[in-house]
Amino acid sequence: MTDPLRIGIIGLGTVGGGVLKLLETNAALITRRAGRPLVVAAVSARNRTRERGVDLSAFAWEDDPVALARRDDVDLVVEAMGGEDGPAKAATEAALGAGKHVVTANKAMLAHHGQALAEAAEASGAALRFEAAVAGGIPCVKALGEGMAGNRITRLMGVLNGTCNYILTRMEAGGEPYAEVLEDAQRLGYAEADPSFDVGGTDAAHKLALMAALAFGTRVDFDGVKTEGIDQVRLADIAHAAEMGYRIKLLGVARMHGDGLEQRMQPCLTPAGSPIGKLEGVTNMVVLESDFAGRTVYEGPGAGAGPTASAIAADMIDIARGARTPAFGIPAAQLRAAPRATGGAPAAYYLRLALRDESGVLAKVAAALGAEGVSIHQMRQSADAAEGGEATVLITTHETHRDRLDAALSTIATSDVATGPAVAIRIEQL
Amino acid sequence: MTDPLRIGIIGLGTVGGGVLKLLETNAALITRRAGRPLVVAAVSARNRTRERGVDLSAFAWEDDPVALARRDDVDLVVEAMGGEDGPAKAATEAALGAGKHVVTANKAMLAHHGQALAEAAEASGAALRFEAAVAGGIPCVKALGEGMAGNRITRLMGVLNGTCNYILTRMEAGGEPYAEVLEDAQRLGYAEADPSFDVGGTDAAHKLALMAALAFGTRVDFDGVKTEGIDQVRLADIAHAAEMGYRIKLLGVARMHGDGLEQRMQPCLTPAGSPIGKLEGVTNMVVLESDFAGRTVYEGPGAGAGPTASAIAADMIDIARGARTPAFGIPAAQLRAAPRATGGAPAAYYLRLALRDESGVLAKVAAALGAEGVSIHQMRQSADAAEGGEATVLITTHETHRDRLDAALSTIATSDVATGPAVAIRIEQL
Repeated sequence: MTDPLRIGIIGLGTVGGGVLKLLETNAALITRRAGRPLVVAAVSARNRTRERGVDLSAFAWEDDPVALARRDDVDLVVEAMGGEDGPAKAATEAALGAGKHVVTANKAMLAHHGQALAEAAEASGAALRFEAAVAGGIPCVKALGEGMAGNRITRLMGVLNGTCNYILTRMEAGGEPYAEVLEDAQRLGYAEADPSFDVGGTDAAHKLALMAALAFGTRVDFDGVKTEGIDQVRLADIAHAAEMGYRIKLLGVARMHGDGLEQRMQPCLTPAGSPIGKLEGVTNMVVLESDFAGRTVYEGPGAGAGPTASAIAADMIDIARGARTPAFGIPAAQLRAAPRATGGAPAAYYLRLALRDESGVLAKVAAALGAEGVSIHQMRQSADAAEGGEATVLITTHETHRDRLDAALSTIATSDVATGPAVAIRIEQL
Repeated sequence: MTDPLRIGIIGLGTVGGGVLKLLETNAALITRRAGRPLVVAAVSARNRTRERGVDLSAFAWEDDPVALARRDDVDLVVEAMGGEDGPAKAATEAALGAGKHVVTANKAMLAHHGQALAEAAEASGAALRFEAAVAGGIPCVKALGEGMAGNRITRLMGVLNGTCNYILTRMEAGGEPYAEVLEDAQRLGYAEADPSFDVGGTDAAHKLALMAALAFGTRVDFDGVKTEGIDQVRLADIAHAAEMGYRIKLLGVARMHGDGLEQRMQPCLTPAGSPIGKLEGVTNMVVLESDFAGRTVYEGPGAGAGPTASAIAADMIDIARGARTPAFGIPAAQLRAAPRATGGAPAAYYLRLALRDESGVLAKVAAALGAEGVSIHQMRQSADAAEGGEATVLITTHETHRDRLDAALSTIATSDVATGPAVAIRIEQL
């Protein structure tokens, strides 16, 4: 098998442009490693004439991505267009339907349509691969789906959105409030103008759902990811967490329980000395805990043209070498539709409560928690927050179930002691 | 391809026993992921009757590992016997010669005979895989050979011997001298009774040589690894390094230069805040720096029955799925016999000198260094070390080439100011 693998690229923005650059820069090396040349045959993008700093004259041009996906001179389509539906999905379906391999960085599309696309790939004997969709340059899809294939995964964790980690790191290091750092991140191009996709946790939840499917042999269930963003995190929370030896991260966790699959993407307190607690800046991290390999940790750049192109190249080279493993590790028809875990694993929690600043209030809070079996580990009044008859009270609990905690917080919220909403942040032990 | 993959296991110690246990524990899961069952057909070990806590009655027994490797009912041989030559190599050759796949954890054998064995595998169309030979449970052979296949590797680094990292961590944390911690490590079973393989750096150098071949497409050149152990590292070095913001690690580095391949396994000062500087205990770490993916970091357990079995299982499942990538990523005949880099990259160094405690000595040292163009960054006399007319002087240099430094140290050693050998430890920036 030494014929060239003929590539068609859909989308010539950051990702597609990076792939073109990589294939050109490292052509000789890739040919040696893949055992055959990877040759770009055709490209498609929204705007043909936009200045990209790349010479496209050697490639056939298609205005229509679906037409590119059906070209006879294309064996593999790189879908670098993005978007959950629309032309990216149409082109992916067209390519797979025609028996052409697809390599994509599109987490939104796979989080919503992964099952159907995996089935389409297998029906036509094509490969569908998505290393670039999760954690950029870190080969964590490969580590999970192949490197850990002999293990039962006991817990999968990930810091999968560099923007959130950047914001939290800056808040902690500089004592700058959330809104200011977010504005700065937008100016630097780290965060989208509409930040909800990043800071709301959706982007990271897409990635977690893909990894969970690989880890547990289940159908992708993005709607089953309990997702909370970082916009409720205050400087006081970060400071208090630090005093207790924790750092706050937007952390994804997936675990299989007796009653179903737990998937969460939410701010968590993580031990400051743990690999996740030590993570800084825009770097991503994946932690895999398993029955034989124990804990393995993967760290690297989670986004950007180069890292994303690297991940796409790895998938292309695997396919050129003949790899045909199903998209989610096992045949799509065998992926189980797992129920969603009702409770999940118990955990300790950090609570921030806005309460009336008067005597007897703390006793009422303690009683409300106690009535639900939630026991208090530490309780203190925040030094900086008492004003106008209102006090901020910070509490850490012992291990409890979230539904018990929520019941207690609901009691507190409807009582006469609360002056604002309660914030509860899970403490995830590593 | 749903026929069982029939496994023969040679060696039933920690590694072989771990593989048996993994295949039994996770049989259903592995069958789903591999697309076919992995069934143990035959086993071989030195002593048939030894109590292993495993029921071997379902497997055919061979006293002779070569006979096992040739059995008609074996498709894949797990070589878990160890040893650079002898029966492990004979059985591996027999298996590959008969067209049977080999999965091995044997770094010594591959470091010395990797080229010949890779050629033998390709001649018969068999796969030869060795994820378990490097960094135990961390899938770093896969990350390097597949995950980073689209990249030019600019620097490969690894902390690849858990025993050494355990000893250095304990020395630093507890202020215990090398000899005491080593004795303790031996008692805990972390270090061999003959510790030279671990603390002398040989074991880690074997692993580095295998990774370098994968990274640079070169023939394995174990003899080309400049190897120094950790036995010269003193508590004073660790303390002084810490004051300057560094920690001492036995660090492997491989890099390709214009004049050839640089491979080193030696104690280095690494920045305390870097991933390698933060590493604790027996954990292993691999850092891959590359032109597109940037820096990716891999961390996990470097040894033990479970992690090693996990790595062997990953290779077996890959083979069951049809993977036939050459052992070192490209066909053995195309691996280049790279010359050895003469100088390597320049670096700053930490120096510990035993000198006469009298005036004028420091000036002579500075002159000797200056004569070779080695410029001093910091120089101080160790507070705890002056006694009996002898002083310990600690120096850090600016970036220099090792041959210049060695020339200067040779001048100092043969002068009348030195009272003992000089120690030079490289400062590796991350």
